[in-house]
Amino acid sequence: MKIKIQDIASLVNGKIFGDVNLEIKKLAKIEDAKPGDLTFLYLPHYEKFFSSTKASVILVKPDFNRSRNDITYIVTEAPEKAFFAVTRKYFTPNFPLEGIDPTAFVHPKTVIGKNVGIGKNVIISVGCKLGDNTKIFHNSVLFDNVELGDDCLIFSNVSIREECKLGNRIIIHDGTVIGSDGFGFNPDANGVYQKIPQIGNVIIEDDVELGSNVSVDRAAMGSTIIKRGTKIDNLVQVAHNVIIGEDTVISSQTGISGSTKIGSKCMVGGQVGIVGHIEIGDNVMLGAQSGISKSIPKPGLYFGYPAKEFKTAMKLEAHIRNLPNYAEKIKQLETEIKNLKEQINRKEIS
Amino acid sequence: MKIKIQDIASLVNGKIFGDVNLEIKKLAKIEDAKPGDLTFLYLPHYEKFFSSTKASVILVKPDFNRSRNDITYIVTEAPEKAFFAVTRKYFTPNFPLEGIDPTAFVHPKTVIGKNVGIGKNVIISVGCKLGDNTKIFHNSVLFDNVELGDDCLIFSNVSIREECKLGNRIIIHDGTVIGSDGFGFNPDANGVYQKIPQIGNVIIEDDVELGSNVSVDRAAMGSTIIKRGTKIDNLVQVAHNVIIGEDTVISSQTGISGSTKIGSKCMVGGQVGIVGHIEIGDNVMLGAQSGISKSIPKPGLYFGYPAKEFKTAMKLEAHIRNLPNYAEKIKQLETEIKNLKEQINRKEIS
Amino acid sequence: MKIKIQDIASLVNGKIFGDVNLEIKKLAKIEDAKPGDLTFLYLPHYEKFFSSTKASVILVKPDFNRSRNDITYIVTEAPEKAFFAVTRKYFTPNFPLEGIDPTAFVHPKTVIGKNVGIGKNVIISVGCKLGDNTKIFHNSVLFDNVELGDDCLIFSNVSIREECKLGNRIIIHDGTVIGSDGFGFNPDANGVYQKIPQIGNVIIEDDVELGSNVSVDRAAMGSTIIKRGTKIDNLVQVAHNVIIGEDTVISSQTGISGSTKIGSKCMVGGQVGIVGHIEIGDNVMLGAQSGISKSIPKPGLYFGYPAKEFKTAMKLEAHIRNLPNYAEKIKQLETEIKNLKEQINRKEIS
Repeated sequence: MKIKIQDIASLVNGKIFGDVNLEIKKLAKIEDAKPGDLTFLYLPHYEKFFSSTKASVILVKPDFNRSRNDITYIVTEAPEKAFFAVTRKYFTPNFPLEGIDPTAFVHPKTVIGKNVGIGKNVIISVGCKLGDNTKIFHNSVLFDNVELGDDCLIFSNVSIREECKLGNRIIIHDGTVIGSDGFGFNPDANGVYQKIPQIGNVIIEDDVELGSNVSVDRAAMGSTIIKRGTKIDNLVQVAHNVIIGEDTVISSQTGISGSTKIGSKCMVGGQVGIVGHIEIGDNVMLGAQSGISKSIPKPGLYFGYPAKEFKTAMKLEAHIRNLPNYAEKIKQLETEIKNLKEQINRKEIS
Repeated sequence: MKIKIQDIASLVNGKIFGDVNLEIKKLAKIEDAKPGDLTFLYLPHYEKFFSSTKASVILVKPDFNRSRNDITYIVTEAPEKAFFAVTRKYFTPNFPLEGIDPTAFVHPKTVIGKNVGIGKNVIISVGCKLGDNTKIFHNSVLFDNVELGDDCLIFSNVSIREECKLGNRIIIHDGTVIGSDGFGFNPDANGVYQKIPQIGNVIIEDDVELGSNVSVDRAAMGSTIIKRGTKIDNLVQVAHNVIIGEDTVISSQTGISGSTKIGSKCMVGGQVGIVGHIEIGDNVMLGAQSGISKSIPKPGLYFGYPAKEFKTAMKLEAHIRNLPNYAEKIKQLETEIKNLKEQINRKEIS
Repeated sequence: MKIKIQDIASLVNGKIFGDVNLEIKKLAKIEDAKPGDLTFLYLPHYEKFFSSTKASVILVKPDFNRSRNDITYIVTEAPEKAFFAVTRKYFTPNFPLEGIDPTAFVHPKTVIGKNVGIGKNVIISVGCKLGDNTKIFHNSVLFDNVELGDDCLIFSNVSIREECKLGNRIIIHDGTVIGSDGFGFNPDANGVYQKIPQIGNVIIEDDVELGSNVSVDRAAMGSTIIKRGTKIDNLVQVAHNVIIGEDTVISSQTGISGSTKIGSKCMVGGQVGIVGHIEIGDNVMLGAQSGISKSIPKPGLYFGYPAKEFKTAMKLEAHIRNLPNYAEKIKQLETEIKNLKEQINRKEIS
């Protein structure tokens, strides 16, 4: 593939300085780029690579010092966003998968849309519905009555359990499980746990993406819900009856306990743990590894274990680092007071 | 399905106030219930939904104020447990799977019980034994000489590696791996790691349930053991030679390092990390995200990183939150002592 | 299998005390050993089992008190390493898998080495290359253009996504995913996340081992790289564009965020979280559950959340445990100063 940089400049609303007739073939990071590549420069941290990059074309900010003559510049307000726009327009992978593979099983009582791709050894059980253009890759399993909308991309070895309902343009990476039983047990008089049947399901709305090896449990009753546009990273745990709002991002290895609600436009760092039955409001940011044991209604950045408002957490952390000084000062004060006492007592006696 | 509420009242030892001839069709949470549904009210937090719930029948405690006349009450000591009993009796899912699917592979040298269900593309390798009524869902793999008892439920994309022995009534959710190699390496003189073959297995006793995407490693030698009635949530790591007692519950994303023993009737929160080669006694509770670096022989609740007895941890956390005050006081004391000194010295001179 | 203990003594450079003509059949831990077994004793903690072990032969250190006459000793400098050497030489499992199973799919446009084993329902997509003696177990999937070197062992239900390149003697346990998309999204003006296509791949060098249910994401551009000899435990997250050096070990449930570089010969504990875009140098050890938010160029042991040098972390932890005393002392000092003041004032007045 060859792309005219004039087309790129027009896509990103940029201005070319250099050879306007160039075409690029590939994209590359500034440090890896080869002749024929387009790259971008955005963070000051990466400017050190500018003098040696072999890229043919580079996206830069308006105030960038265009000191090299052997490279062509496309000047644009936000080079990073511009680069992503080029990536999306010209380099979005295609993931070819056409028709229903003869090794797949599709139950006769299913509704299959147009232009669907079903890979090898895929199981589509009774009562399932698949929208148009949806692709399900090899060795994935849909249990009874699962529904998937249009334009979904389900990768390999994915399990979607009975009754779960998924919207349009959903992407699920390999090894992820949707709809396994919630962790619900009730101890009898002897402390032996009796299983509470988990009779709800999972609802995933449009434009959600789930990483690899994610676990989303079905509700005990009702639905576990992940709302439109939310993105969830690898190895995340979403327990039964959790509700996650729209346009929220949740990083890898975070765990959300049962019946907790997360708002919209939240950003949750990696390895965060959130207890059950609480509510996190909209626009809340939770720092990596934080432990959230109480509801957080107010937008803002929270951090720590147990989590506090970010400024408070940072102040306390500074105090903790200062503890050896405090301990030393307490000792000094003790000595000084002892000395003062003696001084006074001497005076009294004298 | 229609269930007479007289049958329900008699199951939960409850008394009906209202229309004794009602039948219910479904179960629902109080805020979601529709006409024809049975619900329950237990936690004060949910009382706000009572005035508006559309449930036909509600399980309540004896002291509940039955202020509505358009709903039928079943009064019982523990409405939550009563509701679970109804769920178990009438709504336990069936998971139909009959016979051996023609796409499954069952090695001729296996012993297969009565009334077994083996799904599509399942692999049952040489030397395996399956008890009666056990079901193994699609795309799961049993390696050589795996044994499963009666009434087990193995969901999809599960891997059970060679020589692992599992008891009766075991449930394993999708994507879980039993018997992968323990993490055992020995550095040579150059710091290059040589693999220590992991030649043990995993033993899982009766009535254990494992969530989705769990990893249970085989022992280096001997057995990794999970004892009767223990329940393990999604994405948990159980390392080689770990032994977990009976009736213990372990929440999601917790990790137990090699050769550690966990007692019976323990409750382990989510994202807890437990180092190797230690012993946790019976009836120990570990708060979420705790880091356990030493043996805990005594029952009780522990919390923190590193973990402490709960009261101690809470006290220290209060002190940490108080650090800005302590720092301020130390400063004040310094000033006061300085003033006192000056005062005394002035006197001495005078 | 019977193994002459003279062969064992010669393998481990040991000296036999007892019956030099013995043969052993199996290996066992000291507390589990039966007649005919070889065991070892190394840690003082396990000496309590010596008097009762039923092992026929025991590997011990030169200074060990050989008080029993009914057991044969092999005396060697490092009994543990000797035992591992015996395990490797005589007990390395074979994992038989021969030829290409008829239920596997191997695209005609692939290059398959000699003596390859491909299990049931395995998918080898277009453009893949497999080296000699490589085995891929049941229900695993290789997407387009994946390359695997010689002598690799890929267990069941593994997914290796398009374009990923793996070296020789690589072991990947069940349920692991290589090459799922990195977590890359760019919010538009409305805060709706647009996917950044992840067009890089994953490169895994020789002698790497990955546990079960691991997630290694493909690079946004370029490659996520795991270098020679590195070993990664179960449920670990390796994000896009991470580079991990040689001979590094990473324990279970650790997460490494995007574009971070880990050095060679590092040891990373379990449940460690490492933020993105930082560099960890060679020979760095990170304690379990640590949170790493800054680059660590210097070798050493680091611990805590946020992580500090180990000695600092331990010192601060001791201060934290001492906080109730500090608080008490501050109170005492306040009282004493108050008393001193009164004493002085009385004197002044008098």
